[in-house]
Amino acid sequence: MNDIDYMNKAYHLALKAKGETSPNPLVGALIVKGKTIIADGWHRRCGADHAEVVALKKAGQRARGARMVVTLEPCNHYGRTPPCVDQIIESGIKEVIIGMKDPNPLTNGKSIAKLRRAGIKVTTGVLQEDLNVINEAFVKYVTKKMPFVAVKSAQSLDGKIATASGRSKWITSEATRKYARRIRDEFDAILVGINTVLKDNPKLTGSRATKRLKKVVLDSSLRTPPRARLFSNTAPSDVIIVTTLKASVAKRAAFQKKGISVIVYPKRVAKVDLKWLMKELAKREVTSVLVEGGAHVAGSVLKANLADKLYCYIAPIIIGDQNALSSAVGIDTAKVGRAVPLKDVTLTKIGKDILVQGYFGR
Amino acid sequence: MNDIDYMNKAYHLALKAKGETSPNPLVGALIVKGKTIIADGWHRRCGADHAEVVALKKAGQRARGARMVVTLEPCNHYGRTPPCVDQIIESGIKEVIIGMKDPNPLTNGKSIAKLRRAGIKVTTGVLQEDLNVINEAFVKYVTKKMPFVAVKSAQSLDGKIATASGRSKWITSEATRKYARRIRDEFDAILVGINTVLKDNPKLTGSRATKRLKKVVLDSSLRTPPRARLFSNTAPSDVIIVTTLKASVAKRAAFQKKGISVIVYPKRVAKVDLKWLMKELAKREVTSVLVEGGAHVAGSVLKANLADKLYCYIAPIIIGDQNALSSAVGIDTAKVGRAVPLKDVTLTKIGKDILVQGYFGR
Repeated sequence: MNDIDYMNKAYHLALKAKGETSPNPLVGALIVKGKTIIADGWHRRCGADHAEVVALKKAGQRARGARMVVTLEPCNHYGRTPPCVDQIIESGIKEVIIGMKDPNPLTNGKSIAKLRRAGIKVTTGVLQEDLNVINEAFVKYVTKKMPFVAVKSAQSLDGKIATASGRSKWITSEATRKYARRIRDEFDAILVGINTVLKDNPKLTGSRATKRLKKVVLDSSLRTPPRARLFSNTAPSDVIIVTTLKASVAKRAAFQKKGISVIVYPKRVAKVDLKWLMKELAKREVTSVLVEGGAHVAGSVLKANLADKLYCYIAPIIIGDQNALSSAVGIDTAKVGRAVPLKDVTLTKIGKDILVQGYFGR
Repeated sequence: MNDIDYMNKAYHLALKAKGETSPNPLVGALIVKGKTIIADGWHRRCGADHAEVVALKKAGQRARGARMVVTLEPCNHYGRTPPCVDQIIESGIKEVIIGMKDPNPLTNGKSIAKLRRAGIKVTTGVLQEDLNVINEAFVKYVTKKMPFVAVKSAQSLDGKIATASGRSKWITSEATRKYARRIRDEFDAILVGINTVLKDNPKLTGSRATKRLKKVVLDSSLRTPPRARLFSNTAPSDVIIVTTLKASVAKRAAFQKKGISVIVYPKRVAKVDLKWLMKELAKREVTSVLVEGGAHVAGSVLKANLADKLYCYIAPIIIGDQNALSSAVGIDTAKVGRAVPLKDVTLTKIGKDILVQGYFGR
């Protein structure tokens, strides 16, 4: 096994906590002596030991003179736990192989420099691209102070999410909806508009019972029904209703009394500014948001240039009706050139359906 | 090499004439003695020798006692050439391995029976499924007296073929448009509505200069401009303008004087009945039609349940506008259940674009 093989192993360890470490990144680490992996670790959740520390604790005195392979540059700052870089230096590790540099401005190369000053050999950039992808939300969050935003649509081949009469249950198959719930697990929050709540009354749950998923509702007039299904099996504070000064103060107080989070856009307007909202969510350590509808919300997010990624689930059917609702609306396109382009597109078949994934503006 | 290997070779010989044999099928043949292929042949174009005869002529006397591997049951009827089955019997071939039975009611098993009566060993059904696919147009044409109909759309991910202001050049990439022209070569005719002619003024040419592609225009009031680009580099009789009794007799005569084919739907109505038209085209030996637009024509073909296949080219862009024209319109869908389903869906990446292919109602 060479360093790439070790890093690949650490990468897969990191992935074990997918969707569970926010606002922290996914990190995996190995301690290698000669050709033997003597300890491993991964970061399980925010507040738990970092991957490096998990591995160092397992290795104990045996770490002395060994090499560490870690997917992300060790941290250099006191957060919820003490800096890993100091613990690595103390452990007697003689060489550190790092996957990607920590994009967090609090670290970003400082630990690498500190390790080198302590006489430890450091290599960086091993499997960097793959590691960037699994931490794409973290990278955006720490560098831009904005959540990573994905837009989901479930549509027919001709881009319709409902028939002209408004029926939408179900365009995609059960297998696809199950897959889409697993994708929810990778996000901190799901965002929907009030019309989706009123019309579809979705639960907005992930696939794991353990996953605490925030549910954000754009609801400028506070029309969310107190018994909406999205409140079930959810801590009230995990529901965030985003409203405006237009909304009734009494209604707002009623939600807050139940422990439900209410964010008020401080303007007397019909619509919340979405960029402002994303910044607010980032302040609350929401590192990633999955926008699940409806068409107007998707269109607004795209129009405001806030989306990073698309999950477009396509059922192999043609609805064939101009009046049927399209998957994203509200972008006035005088020219094809105004259309929103996707990059790095990948295709996945899920049973009979198709998943098109891609990134915006990269 | 076993019989499947030989049949695979014959299959690839058959494919050499893809798009060039209509209204005949693609056929390839081998003559094998011991383990040696002593002759091969394929049907090159309608009126030319059938594959079996090409191979028999090459083999001459050496055919005696040999085995023939042929993708399609040899013909039993006098068409443009004499029946192959008699020539095979005369040649002294002792065994015939057949890919698929000829679906043509004029043959359909009769040749197999005749060969057996002549003491020739016959095996059938080798690689039958693959062979059915390459002759899907022929199979439909000879069994239903209707052309095989494919619908093409070139759309954004959200199913739009033009912006709200009507601009559509070009949603998909040059590579995709080139690919789509090669697909045209596999058809006998391209069908478009008059609005596509007036708005886009397409040439509707294939990728090969040698390919004689019929161009069918749905034009109930005869508005096709005499200088439309679709007339360029095309024999006038290969342009078929389909109109109604509503259209001016003088205009009709003017087109006919130039040698342009005019089909008149014998009713004084706004729209030609498409099922009637397809039957008319079949009578003129049009075995396959590629419907290329616009959205209303595509929707009408789907609504009338005339389409067999879909080629949906998707550019990875989102237009995001409800008012932008959807790829197929005119199907009134009150319920998702009324949507037109696709089967046997396959995905192909063409540069940045995606091609979704599938079949209707199988």
